[in-house]
Order: sequence, then C-alpha cells, then structure tokens
Amino acid sequence: MNISSSEVIYALNALLGEGGILESSQDMSRYAVDWAGDRLGSPLAVARPRTTEEVAGIVEFCHRHRVPMVAQGGHTGLVGGALPDAGQPELVISLERLNQIREIDPLNFTLSVDSGCVLQTVKDVAAEHECDFPLSLGAQGSCQIGGNVATNAGGLNVLRYGMMRQLVLGLEVVLPDGRIWNGMRALHKDNRGYDLKQLFIGAEGTLGIITGVVLKLFPQPQETRTALVAVPDVFAALGLYALARRSCCELLSAFELIPRACLELAFEAAPDLPDPLETPAPFYVLLEITASGPVDLEAMIEHLFDSGMQAGQVLDGVLASSDAQAARLWRIREAMVEGQQLHGEHLRTDIALPISTLGNFFNEANRAMAAISPQTTVIAYGHLGDGNLHFNLLPPAELDLTAKRVLLHALETELFAIVEDYQGSISAEHGIGRTKQTAFLDGLSELERELISDLKQLFDPDDLMAAGRILPRVTDPAIHYQSQE
Amino acid sequence: MNISSSEVIYALNALLGEGGILESSQDMSRYAVDWAGDRLGSPLAVARPRTTEEVAGIVEFCHRHRVPMVAQGGHTGLVGGALPDAGQPELVISLERLNQIREIDPLNFTLSVDSGCVLQTVKDVAAEHECDFPLSLGAQGSCQIGGNVATNAGGLNVLRYGMMRQLVLGLEVVLPDGRIWNGMRALHKDNRGYDLKQLFIGAEGTLGIITGVVLKLFPQPQETRTALVAVPDVFAALGLYALARRSCCELLSAFELIPRACLELAFEAAPDLPDPLETPAPFYVLLEITASGPVDLEAMIEHLFDSGMQAGQVLDGVLASSDAQAARLWRIREAMVEGQQLHGEHLRTDIALPISTLGNFFNEANRAMAAISPQTTVIAYGHLGDGNLHFNLLPPAELDLTAKRVLLHALETELFAIVEDYQGSISAEHGIGRTKQTAFLDGLSELERELISDLKQLFDPDDLMAAGRILPRVTDPAIHYQSQE
Repeated sequence: MNISSSEVIYALNALLGEGGILESSQDMSRYAVDWAGDRLGSPLAVARPRTTEEVAGIVEFCHRHRVPMVAQGGHTGLVGGALPDAGQPELVISLERLNQIREIDPLNFTLSVDSGCVLQTVKDVAAEHECDFPLSLGAQGSCQIGGNVATNAGGLNVLRYGMMRQLVLGLEVVLPDGRIWNGMRALHKDNRGYDLKQLFIGAEGTLGIITGVVLKLFPQPQETRTALVAVPDVFAALGLYALARRSCCELLSAFELIPRACLELAFEAAPDLPDPLETPAPFYVLLEITASGPVDLEAMIEHLFDSGMQAGQVLDGVLASSDAQAARLWRIREAMVEGQQLHGEHLRTDIALPISTLGNFFNEANRAMAAISPQTTVIAYGHLGDGNLHFNLLPPAELDLTAKRVLLHALETELFAIVEDYQGSISAEHGIGRTKQTAFLDGLSELERELISDLKQLFDPDDLMAAGRILPRVTDPAIHYQSQE
Repeated sequence: MNISSSEVIYALNALLGEGGILESSQDMSRYAVDWAGDRLGSPLAVARPRTTEEVAGIVEFCHRHRVPMVAQGGHTGLVGGALPDAGQPELVISLERLNQIREIDPLNFTLSVDSGCVLQTVKDVAAEHECDFPLSLGAQGSCQIGGNVATNAGGLNVLRYGMMRQLVLGLEVVLPDGRIWNGMRALHKDNRGYDLKQLFIGAEGTLGIITGVVLKLFPQPQETRTALVAVPDVFAALGLYALARRSCCELLSAFELIPRACLELAFEAAPDLPDPLETPAPFYVLLEITASGPVDLEAMIEHLFDSGMQAGQVLDGVLASSDAQAARLWRIREAMVEGQQLHGEHLRTDIALPISTLGNFFNEANRAMAAISPQTTVIAYGHLGDGNLHFNLLPPAELDLTAKRVLLHALETELFAIVEDYQGSISAEHGIGRTKQTAFLDGLSELERELISDLKQLFDPDDLMAAGRILPRVTDPAIHYQSQE
C-alpha cells in the first residue's frame, strides 16, 4: 500500500458518494464475520458499489495504490474465503447493493442478473416466469449469486442439474487491474476460442470480481414426489441409487444418504419432528423426483420401491402424500445440521469419492476413526448421488476444547489420508478458502501448484485480490514461487 | 527448429520403434487431409505414439529442439485446426494408436479412456454396461474422444446432455514442454482450487495434448420416440419448443429445425426416401424423447402434438411406429447434408443465437441474403433447442468457382454482421481453427485477445503447439502482441 487508510477512505467516498463506504467498527462488524460465526481480522473499510463501473473504479484505485481487497457476498461461505484478513487490512468490496435483475428471457431459458442478487430472489424471479433456477442450498435466503459462481456452489440438486459451473452461460468480471471483461453471453452453445468464464468460476474471487451473471434456467417442475426409504446399509443405498438413476430417468433430483444417528440429531434440534417410519433402520435415503410435464411420478416411485424391496435394498419407506409431509421429510435434513451445532466443537468435512467406492470407504473410514477414538460419533451423511459425503465427527463431550481440537485434527488427518487412497476430494463443494488450504496444498502436485500459481500471477501479479485464499500469499518469502517465465 | 528434419525422424524413430514414425509422402498423405477434403501443407513426419509416456517423450523432444507440432485425431474437424501447416512443416502427432479403454465404472457412471479412442467405440463400451455416453455426431464412427474434448464437440443431444465440456470429469494432458498433467479424476463433484481441465477443453490443442479422458455416463435409454412435425414457420417451431421443454420434462433429447428446402436436398441425395408427410410444409421439426425407465413416452408426445395443434403451431406430424421408421426420419437429417455436397461450392456456417431471437433473426438474415443475391438458396437448419443454426448458402449454379467464392464471402460477411447485432456466436460448435479465425478476431475485444494470448504464452511460450490456430502465430511480426508482464 503506497497510501494511508484515510486516503483510501477519502478517495472512495468521493467515488461512491453517500453510504458507499463504511468505516466505523460498528458499521463494519457484520462484514468481518460469516454465517458460522468465524472471524479473522477487521476490514480497512467496506465499499458498497451499486454498479459494475463503481466496482471497476474501486478496483482500479486499489490496483494503482496497491491496496489489498476482497469481494464479499452473503457471508455464507464455509471455508473463510471472504473474511477480511487478520494480517494486512483489506478493503472489503461488498456486492450487496449491486443487486438488480437485468433481464429475463423465458423462451431462451436465461436470466441475467447483477452478482449481488440473493439466490432466493433469483429463484423467485425465475418462478414468476414459469422457469426454475435449480441451485438449492440451505443458505439460499442470504447467499448471493456472485458468491455461488465464485465458489462453484453445489447443494441438493447437483445430481440432476450440475454444480454452479454448469448453470452459468455468461459472466461479467472486473479484473484485478480494474478493467471490465464483458462475457455476458446468453448463448447455449458458443465455441469461440478459450472459454474465459471458466477461469473465474470456482476461483473464489482470486482472479477477478464477478459483477454480472447470465444463468441457465429450466422448466418449472409441476409435480414433485418426495420419499424416505429405510435401507440396511450403504451398499444397499448404492444398489438403490443404481436402480433409481435408471427407473426415474433424469427426473431424480435428490438422493440423500442419512444414517440413523442423523435422525437422532434432528430430533434433538426439533423434538416435535415425528419418527418417519415405525421401525428404526440403520440408514435412510431421502429422494425426490420432479417433472415439468405429465409423467406418472407416483407409479415411477412405486416401481422403484418394488424393485428395491425385491432386491433386498429397501426395508421400508414412506412416500409423502402432501406438500406438508414432504416438507417434514426435508425438515429432517435441515434439523440434523442444527442438531450438530448443539454439540459444540465438531469437525465438518465435505469429501467426494467415486460413488462405487462409497460402501467400502464408509466402512474403512468408520473403522479408522474408531481405532483412534472409539468415543467419537461419526455423523456421515450426504449427497450420495454425487459421491459427496459430509463425514462429520462429534468428539466425546467430556473433553475440553483444546483436547477436542487436537483429537479432531488427528481424525481429520487420518480421514483425508483415506480419501486420498480412494482418489477422492477433500473439498467436494465448499472450496478451499483458508480453512482447507493446508490439506489442499498437501495433496497438490508440484506441477498443479505451479500452474495455479502462474494463473494467479497472470491475472493478479501484485497479489492484491483475495490474496492468501486457495494459495498462500506470494509475498510470504517461505512459500514464494516463481513463474516459469 | 534447431535441428534438421532427418534428425527429428531419426530421434523419434529411436523413441517410438517400428511403425512409430511415418515419413514417406504416401504413408503421410492421409494425415494431410481432413473429412471435407481440405488440405494445407505436408507433415514434417507423422508420429504415432501408443502411450502417454511416448506422447510426452515426443513433445519434450520437440520442445527442446523447437520443432512445431500438431496433435491429430480422426480428421473430422470442420475448421482446419488439425491439418498440418502450409508454412512451416509441423510434426503431426496422431493419437490413433493411443486407443485403449482404461476403466469402466458403471455404478459411478464413469468411463476412463485413452484420447485416441473412437467415439463410437466409447459409446459401444458404455452400452455393454447398460450405460450411455450421449455425445452424438455424424462423424462418430471416426472422430476421436480427444478431438471431441479439444474442440468441445456438440452434436445432436446437447439440449439434454450439454456439450463435451459437460461430459468430462477428468483429463490427462501432455503440456507443451512435455510434462504430464494427471487430472484423471472420476469425481462428480470436486472443488479443489482452479479447475485446470477447463483450460484444455475447447482449446483446440493449443495448450496441450489430451491423452486421457474420464467421461461422465448416463443410464442407457430403454425407450425412444421419434417424431417429425410440420410447422408453418420458425415462430411456431419456437412456440412448440417452449411447450416441448415443459411437457417432455428433461426427456427431450433432440429438437431439430428442418426447412422444406432441406427435405428436397435430402431427396436429391437419397431418392428412395419417402416424403414423410402427405402435404409439404414450410418447416419441420424432428424431435426425439428417450427414457431409461418406465415412462409413457407415447402419451407424452401425443399430449405435445395436441397442445401444439390447439396453439396453431403444429400442422401435421408423424410419430415413428418402429425403429426402422425412426431411422428413416433421422436419415433425412443425414441425407440433407449429403445433398448440399452435391451442389459443389457452398457456404457452411455454424452460428448460435439466443433461442428467443431465432424467428426474427431468420427473417432478417433471409432478407439480407436475398438483397445481395436473390438467386442464392438459403439452407438454414439446426439444433433449434440449442439456438444453433447451420445457416448455409448455395450460390447460383451458373456462376464460376471464383465468382461463387466472392459472392459467398460477401454473404458471410453480411450474415456475421447480423449475428453480431443479435449478440450471437459465429461458431456454436465447430470451433475456430483456421477457417473461422478472421471472423473470430474481428469480433474479439482488445481485452479478450490479450487474455487469450497471455494464456497461450503461459502454456506455450515458444508457440510450438498447434501454432496459428485460434490466434495467429506470435512469430508473425504483423500480429505480434506482448504479454502484459
């Protein structure tokens, strides 16, 4: 930084006008903390641009004066990526006021929006035009589209619609030097040279700030069937998945694995929730099929039940007979996450594996955890249809906080080693940010590290934008690496 | 090149052994020509590696001695990208012997293959395991998977399954310096840092040579319904599309627009083909729905017919009652392409537009073509469900070749200007290669050109790999541009 904090604030106030810059600790406090309550440092200031040009003006200014900056969406990230740094003060660029719907084209099945639009708003606008924007997350009431793109968000419907990367047709990005790249194309096919937008999707704001997005829409589902099925083990759940992929055609939109322990957690958080089936079972699958046209979903799901029963994969099941009953089934999925929070310090993971290995992985990982700490409770649920498990761990309640953290660290290290053996991923959908960085770097080959670092240097040679996320800062002498050139 | 051609051949012969290098003009002739009969220069030699390590050895050698090289798949490209250069002799690296199936995992819905596998072989292997690899192209009997990835191939089923980019989970790539990047991940979700494989998909071999691919599979369709529907105009076809997207749910796998003129061309190429409907209509839609499970497709398509009739969008239609009849309907789609070839010199284009603008675009482009040359026949068909038109032009037969070319060039220039007005793409699925380069560069912003050029320089600073494709050679002094750094 070749300028003082007060000079930054003075200049950006002039650029953004009234309300554009927040600088008091009170005003800035909510920008220093995320959904999970994590907090690192305080912002240098918070800039709240309303237009792409204002974003470009801020970034150009920061680039010129070497002011570190980080873009911020809805504070719902899970890896600390958007939190202002604890080391050097960063200018937080909040996109919350860049939140206009630009254009909806229902016949083209596209929707163009500012990146600060809240996901739920986007879904509502699509629905008003009988379209569906299918990204579905717990945080959808507050997360922003730009953050969803920057982190390549996943969620509940990836099985059918893909991750955010597959739902983006065009982007507008302010590059780290303040130039605006206009890639707002509303084309379903476009093979003109390198697909530059792919670079920014999932880059967690390290290569540019996303200001506009063209989203791909789908027909709005007219009918939905939700079911909870009891299964004896993970292998049976996998067999049922293979059946369901086929017999439900492409209409299967969710296939969630839920062990009994998760149901118990859900009942802790929501004691009024009824046990959905008479006899408790070791595992459950929560599945949903939806259709935008005339398909007999009931027959489809009953056919699946019957086949599953015959194959010994299904023990019992309930098919929701009303929207209210379907909502109660989905409430289990939410309440079990809330139930984990009630237990205080615990380990959340977000791993992906080849689907076919999930049964063996599950057994081996459970054995390995028990070998280290028999009193630790494994809470492993997830998007089985994507091979994505949240293999979470609740340490014994009697340990103190330090002992819990030491234990959880040891368990995580062992778990990630098994993930590596199974050629899996230590981050299926949450990204790297800061909290996954060490594990990410451990698994990275020399060549990959060089390529990622070269790309970062190409776009942001001064390492000013979201520095220290994904890769460590290049200014840290211990981990400085040269580009090939 | 700091080495003679014979030294290259000598060294690579030693590396690859018997049959690994072809050097006689006779042996090399088929590597100098593509499917459409286009030809530019002759190869320096043709290398035919059988393993990734051999590819790496060749590339490392070429990198060290500054030997220009180009990877080659099944010679089915349409933009001259894989043809050896006419200026400086290039080593052709043919992937035809790198063609092993590596691993199929039907429960994970993935298939790992060498990049030289022919698309049809890949489809067959998937089918043996009751899976489907849905990429479908006219050239599927000879095109190779690596070429499909390098060009981000499209084809007939993009509407439902996306382009090649959406069908790739992992890649193995030999970088321009000969290092092997192993990104052969078989994970449906993986958010670990930058998604490097996206760089190579659609880069037309300019950033590396793809040697291995992990493909995403789908359940094999069990039932298919194919129909040809007569519609009064493009607007009606669009209305029917909006209906079909909804009422056929996600089961709609093709929605092809065919004007009457194309049927006439099909009859020229295949005189035994019957006119599919009693009364000729201005336009037809060839549509297909498929399902892997128990869905009443017949009821679905009849519901669509009825709705379309009531809305005045459907004049008449035929639903294939047998596989043979369905094949005859698809035969029209192939024969009309063959029919165009019978007319000699003509213009093939591959444009994409926002789907909602196709009606207005179609009218405006037709008027503009007629204003320049009333005797030119417009043959505009395409994947309406993707907004992708092959807006082709047959010049008056009485013109000589030179006059035809001059006329077609003028028409293309005008057509592309209209595409630009409609915010469309001049290359929906064929890529840039050489033949689309001028039009591509004309439409490229300064910033995009800089970014693309910087990426190329980062990966291939000596401009040795597929040089002159997408962007001009950097060694051409007239078009030399510096990286920002």
